[in-house]
Amino acid sequence: MNYPLPDINLKALFLGGKGENVDIFKESLNKIIDEHVGWRQNYMPQDLPVITPQDKSSQSFQETTDHVRSVFNELSSKLRTESLPWHSAGRFWGHMNSETLMPSIIAYTAAMLWNGNNVAYESSPGTSQMEEECGHEFAKLMNYKAGESWGHICADGSIANLEGLWYARNIKSLPLAIKEVAPEFVEGKSEWELLNMSTESILDILDQASEKMDEIKAHSARSGKNLSKLGKWLIPQTKHYSWLKAADIIGIGLDCVEAIDVDNEYRMDIVKLEARIRELAAQNIPILGVVGVIGTTEEGQVDRIDKIVELREKLAKEGIYFYIHVDAAYGGYARAIFLDENDQFIDFDKIDEVYAKYNIFTEKNAWLTEDIYNSFKAMSQAETITIDPHKMGYIPYSAGAIVIKDIRMREAISYFATYVFEKGADIPALLGAYILEGSKAGATAAAVWTAHKVLPLNVTGYGKLIGASIEGAYRFYEFLKNKQFKVGDKTINLYPLTKPDFNMVDYVFNEEGNTDLKKMNKLNHDFFDYASYVKGGLYNNEFITSHTDFAFPDYGNSPMAFVQSIGFSEAEWNREAKVTVLRACALSPYAHNKEVFAEYAEKIEKAIQEKLEAIYLHEQQ
Amino acid sequence: MNYPLPDINLKALFLGGKGENVDIFKESLNKIIDEHVGWRQNYMPQDLPVITPQDKSSQSFQETTDHVRSVFNELSSKLRTESLPWHSAGRFWGHMNSETLMPSIIAYTAAMLWNGNNVAYESSPGTSQMEEECGHEFAKLMNYKAGESWGHICADGSIANLEGLWYARNIKSLPLAIKEVAPEFVEGKSEWELLNMSTESILDILDQASEKMDEIKAHSARSGKNLSKLGKWLIPQTKHYSWLKAADIIGIGLDCVEAIDVDNEYRMDIVKLEARIRELAAQNIPILGVVGVIGTTEEGQVDRIDKIVELREKLAKEGIYFYIHVDAAYGGYARAIFLDENDQFIDFDKIDEVYAKYNIFTEKNAWLTEDIYNSFKAMSQAETITIDPHKMGYIPYSAGAIVIKDIRMREAISYFATYVFEKGADIPALLGAYILEGSKAGATAAAVWTAHKVLPLNVTGYGKLIGASIEGAYRFYEFLKNKQFKVGDKTINLYPLTKPDFNMVDYVFNEEGNTDLKKMNKLNHDFFDYASYVKGGLYNNEFITSHTDFAFPDYGNSPMAFVQSIGFSEAEWNREAKVTVLRACALSPYAHNKEVFAEYAEKIEKAIQEKLEAIYLHEQQ
Repeated sequence: MNYPLPDINLKALFLGGKGENVDIFKESLNKIIDEHVGWRQNYMPQDLPVITPQDKSSQSFQETTDHVRSVFNELSSKLRTESLPWHSAGRFWGHMNSETLMPSIIAYTAAMLWNGNNVAYESSPGTSQMEEECGHEFAKLMNYKAGESWGHICADGSIANLEGLWYARNIKSLPLAIKEVAPEFVEGKSEWELLNMSTESILDILDQASEKMDEIKAHSARSGKNLSKLGKWLIPQTKHYSWLKAADIIGIGLDCVEAIDVDNEYRMDIVKLEARIRELAAQNIPILGVVGVIGTTEEGQVDRIDKIVELREKLAKEGIYFYIHVDAAYGGYARAIFLDENDQFIDFDKIDEVYAKYNIFTEKNAWLTEDIYNSFKAMSQAETITIDPHKMGYIPYSAGAIVIKDIRMREAISYFATYVFEKGADIPALLGAYILEGSKAGATAAAVWTAHKVLPLNVTGYGKLIGASIEGAYRFYEFLKNKQFKVGDKTINLYPLTKPDFNMVDYVFNEEGNTDLKKMNKLNHDFFDYASYVKGGLYNNEFITSHTDFAFPDYGNSPMAFVQSIGFSEAEWNREAKVTVLRACALSPYAHNKEVFAEYAEKIEKAIQEKLEAIYLHEQQ
Repeated sequence: MNYPLPDINLKALFLGGKGENVDIFKESLNKIIDEHVGWRQNYMPQDLPVITPQDKSSQSFQETTDHVRSVFNELSSKLRTESLPWHSAGRFWGHMNSETLMPSIIAYTAAMLWNGNNVAYESSPGTSQMEEECGHEFAKLMNYKAGESWGHICADGSIANLEGLWYARNIKSLPLAIKEVAPEFVEGKSEWELLNMSTESILDILDQASEKMDEIKAHSARSGKNLSKLGKWLIPQTKHYSWLKAADIIGIGLDCVEAIDVDNEYRMDIVKLEARIRELAAQNIPILGVVGVIGTTEEGQVDRIDKIVELREKLAKEGIYFYIHVDAAYGGYARAIFLDENDQFIDFDKIDEVYAKYNIFTEKNAWLTEDIYNSFKAMSQAETITIDPHKMGYIPYSAGAIVIKDIRMREAISYFATYVFEKGADIPALLGAYILEGSKAGATAAAVWTAHKVLPLNVTGYGKLIGASIEGAYRFYEFLKNKQFKVGDKTINLYPLTKPDFNMVDYVFNEEGNTDLKKMNKLNHDFFDYASYVKGGLYNNEFITSHTDFAFPDYGNSPMAFVQSIGFSEAEWNREAKVTVLRACALSPYAHNKEVFAEYAEKIEKAIQEKLEAIYLHEQQ
């Protein structure tokens, strides 16, 4: 069904920092529960209830019900005592956590009553169809070609990244397998050439060699052979630990993972990437793949995917090919802000006009650069993309996803089990044979499907929400810039890390005149303790943030420019080799509003002042 | 908190086939939602709502709300049209799907409102604590030693199995790494001896060599080296495709997986297992590990874990050691039926007495044999066990879990990220560094935690539910035995596959006198079409089942005895080499009741009759 889409009011889509929409939430939830119960009652109305009024009046039933009520009391108390107040419109500037879409919470709950298992179409026709739709919507979001691409929901970004690496590993190994099984298709190619074939050309051969497909697959990396020949997996230095884990699990090994330095803006340094690839090629070491990140976990920065794609095109002419995986676990949904009402990538010179039309921002802001624009645009050239609905999709955990550019890639990893092989239209009868996981909640698909129906993946829907989030982040960024606090005779200055590429703002406090990096790190670490669960009393905490460390073993010298800009010497950086940074993922769907932000700015400034005073007071004792 | 546990009435724990408990469900759900909203309102009561009455009266708010209502209408309609009526107390005998525990559904929904992410303690203190508790409860369920064991929740059984194989692979490779990094600890050991060290002795060395731990780990299988030396991963012939997938992903390769024949009862043939291990050892090929299954996916059968453990002890004396992973994704929770109120494994000769005391069964039944008892008991000797809360835990998807016998094993796979390293008591600050996944729903932990509080993992709690399920399965099994249907002048007989080890009943129809196996297979396949989504109109279908194929490439000749018992010749089996079987996973928490079952037996007999008539009528047209 296609709905006439109204001008979306984001405030109607969340429960609200103060539960303002609890009336709508409960009305909708109870309605859909009643519909579910009606369905149960009316499936074979001639069947009588097996839980009788007498059962319900019995002592054991009453006692059991009271027992459950006691458990709920404990559950509710624990949740209220030990949870984070990210619902606040303006006091939570920390971990990647926030309000989630009310329609998704309700959809999840509703679908949970049916408890479909999307591993097999047979057990979940309704939610399997929804997952298939979502997969195609993700593909459309990436401007992958309709009908030729595919995607599915998975547990989380780590699993999606692992699946991406699994695709890359098996596909890269196929030419060696073809050489063994059907050499006529790769006649005259050297091993180097085999290991530098493009994904598309490999899949084209598989199409032609379809009769030998099973045998070719059996000789691919899935046999356990040739893993060490496939080359290096290059990731940005801002590397998420999940990539090390993935390389461990997938068997290519940590030794195959190489980190490419990032620049001062924490984006992969493309010049160094090219140099390293050429160095490896000179040693006859192929590149298994390159990972670009859209929204780094610690900084929210955006790698230059366009430059990675350009580099691939350039090197292809020299016989070097690498797979591209984009880890857009965090920033994937943000691509919606670049798509017009027809899901076309908006021309750069038209974009302000479109944003004005759809009220994407309340004020003109400094966020969008051509670099960021080009990075998002080029995602369509990657073989696989990780995208997490439970991050910028504002959908409850756990909901990750992966999208593949060419649906034929599925063959490289697919299995078949005997017990379900019927086809439900074009939907895999056994999704578990095409993905990393097995059983999976149909409810997750319902939650994602509902969100996509409510908010189309373009400027008319998600674009507005993403815009609100970015604008909120920029308000916070502007708030931090040049801010000073006075504690006794000390002056504490605030320094944001970089101009944010997305909606994450990293920052540090430093005492004026302090040139001891260790001391600054301690101050920021102490601040985190006071602004997190560490000091207890989460519910009474008036400002909450998170933190991270940029240390030399992971980051190299990329933090040095920042550290120097605050006033530390190069020698001081070399001595301490670590900077502790506070980290705010700005997800509030309300803080983009000028008045709302101003109101909270005053409050959090006061809360920060109090925390700094507590730190210095404690120090003196 | 410890609750005085009443005599649990299972009927108070489910929404009910007819939604009989919708009053309790909604009361509890709305109460806990109100408590959540109260929490939001009272966090900083001085902060005013940002969604104002004026906002809510605005046109765009109203239009957006109506838009969401339209989406809910479509969602609800799709779910009601395309879902399976497994809620029926006695008409659904198919896929592994059923009512789930009402307390878990409510707990999930409640916790979803807080949307904790258990990847990091910082973002989810409450639900992280719950997950840690659940892990220890799983360990207790397996009679692993308290304080020395550990477990966690994961996405599903495929992921848990993959993690088990990851553990096995990395641990098995450690002695080779120790030899490289700290040879003094393995002095004088040959490569064969290194590859046959027990898990315990490997972990003991790691304890002693803790200073070199990181370097040793860096030289283990995670480096990508030595994967091909680790030997064979032996699984029963009833193998789930997820094992092939796991071997592919983990990089040891499919060629390392070997299937051991099953006997006529679809349990791994231990004599053949021993023979194969000796054969491999004679060729200097080590055994990476052996998988025993508690509840095979297609037959519900239980491998003789005790015999696998005995074999390991015997072979250890000859210098052969293998890791044991128990895949109890399906049957793991059933171990609760063997634990007394103090979580001790009940003596075999006391078990009937305990069952009588706790009303585990309504009537004495034929289920429990000493073989099954011993298999469950010996699970405590396995290194890792997969157990799925979303199967016999009656908890909504997705909730898998893995338990490890020795908490020190975690080191073999652990990673650390920089951004969260504080410790919350003994709970990992960054769970993601110790498990396969990253982000994961705190709500799942809340659902499992709540279920375990409501139903302890012993005979006082889950034991009763498992007992009801097994008794229901046996009623269905008895119903099928010797059943005949008449269609025109044809007689159709029903044959159950085996005496069930658990709660799954496989069966076939065959026309009397038919000796054509292909024809029988077609009949059963046609029956499935009429008793599933295939023919459409799920909501009007009066009897629903699932099916599977036992084909020679996977099953070898293990189905031959069954096929012969129906009256087919060996030659006929060899010709067709496949038998299509109908498959009923009996999960209804009501069908154990004699009267309830009798009422439904009459109805489903009639429905079966109608389906058979439709098949034969269609054939004549």
